[in-house]
Amino acid sequence: MDLAVLYSGGKDSSLAALLLERFYDIRLVTGSFGITDDWQHAATAAERLGYSFEAVKLDRDVADTAVTTMIEDGYPRNGIQHVHEHALEVAAQLDVAAIADGTRRDDRVPTVSRAQAQSLEDRHNIDYLSPLSGFGRHAIDQLAARCLHVDTGSSVDIIKSDYETELRTLIADRVGSEAVGSIFPAHTQSYVQHRRSNKTEETQ
Amino acid sequence: MDLAVLYSGGKDSSLAALLLERFYDIRLVTGSFGITDDWQHAATAAERLGYSFEAVKLDRDVADTAVTTMIEDGYPRNGIQHVHEHALEVAAQLDVAAIADGTRRDDRVPTVSRAQAQSLEDRHNIDYLSPLSGFGRHAIDQLAARCLHVDTGSSVDIIKSDYETELRTLIADRVGSEAVGSIFPAHTQSYVQHRRSNKTEETQ
Repeated sequence: MDLAVLYSGGKDSSLAALLLERFYDIRLVTGSFGITDDWQHAATAAERLGYSFEAVKLDRDVADTAVTTMIEDGYPRNGIQHVHEHALEVAAQLDVAAIADGTRRDDRVPTVSRAQAQSLEDRHNIDYLSPLSGFGRHAIDQLAARCLHVDTGSSVDIIKSDYETELRTLIADRVGSEAVGSIFPAHTQSYVQHRRSNKTEETQ
Repeated sequence: MDLAVLYSGGKDSSLAALLLERFYDIRLVTGSFGITDDWQHAATAAERLGYSFEAVKLDRDVADTAVTTMIEDGYPRNGIQHVHEHALEVAAQLDVAAIADGTRRDDRVPTVSRAQAQSLEDRHNIDYLSPLSGFGRHAIDQLAARCLHVDTGSSVDIIKSDYETELRTLIADRVGSEAVGSIFPAHTQSYVQHRRSNKTEETQ
C-alpha cells in the first residue's frame, strides 16, 4: 500500500516515515508554493534515507492568505495551521492509500483534530495517519537520536524544506526583512543527514 | 530500552507492540485482579508473537470501585477508564524506560489525555506511548489483517485477557449473571493467533 508522508527533511517527518515503513510503501512528499527552491533539501534528505520523493505544488493563494493572517496576528500559528491543512488536502488527492504527517502529541501547531482526520478520510477515501501523535517530546528526541543522524540549530540557519522559508520570504516582501523575526521568530529546527542502523545501537 | 506494553492478547495491543518492536525491547504486560486466570491467554498470545511476558497484580479495590461505578451508571465506560488508569500506574512502576497501550484515535474508552500522559511521564520518569492514537479504525483493521492472524467474535465467546472477564465476574457476583449483559454489553473482540510475515504479503 502506498503512503504519502508530508516531508520537510526534519527529524519528525523522517521519524514518522521510519515508524511506518514496515507497513507501507513510503513516498515522501514535500509541498512548495514555487517561491523558493527549498523543497530540494527535502529531496536530498529523502534520497539519503532511501525513500522515493515527490514535490507537489501548493496553491499560492493559500500562502498569501497565511501570510496576511500571520502579519495581522503578529505570530505564525494560525498561518502555519492554514498551510498545513492545505498541504494535507493536496496530499490526499495523490494516488495513495494513506497519507501521514509528523504531528506530535505535544505540538501546539499544526494540529489535526479527530474530526478533521475523519473528514479527510471520508472525503478522499484514504487513511490519515499521525504516527507521532502518541509520542511525547522526550520519546521522539530519544528515538530520533537512535535512528537518525540529525543536524539541529536555529530555523534561520538550518536548511530544510518546510513551508517556513517560503512564508518568511513572503513576509519579508510585504513588511520588510527586519520585521520577519518578530512575526515568525526563529526556533529550533532539524535536518536529517542519514540513518543510524537499529535499536541495538545506543547513542544516548 | 525496555518498553512495557499493556497487553490483552487482542488485535490492538498486539499491533501496538509490532509498531514499537523496532525501537524498543518489548515486554508484554497483563494486569490481573486475581479473580480469574484469564491473564494466561495473554501469556499464550505473547509467546506466539515471540515477546517476553509478565503478569502484574492489580489492586482488587480498584476492581470493586470500578464495578460499583458500572452498576450505578448502568454502563461500563467510567469503570473501564478507572481500571485502565490504574493499570498504567502499575506498569509505570516497572523497571522500564517506557510504557505503552493500544489506545486508538477513535476509541471512546479508555482515553488518556495529553495532561494525563504528561503526568504519568513526570511522576514516574518514563515515556508513555500510545502508538495507535494516530490511526483510525480502518487503518488499524487493515494493518492487523496484514500482520496478524486474528480470531474475532463476541466478547462473551472470544478468549482473551483484558479486564473484562474479571469485571463481568464481579458484576455477576453482585447483581446476578442475568444482569451482566445490560450493564456490560457484549461487543466485538479479537484474539491473536500468530504473526503474518510482512507488508509484501497482501491479505485484503
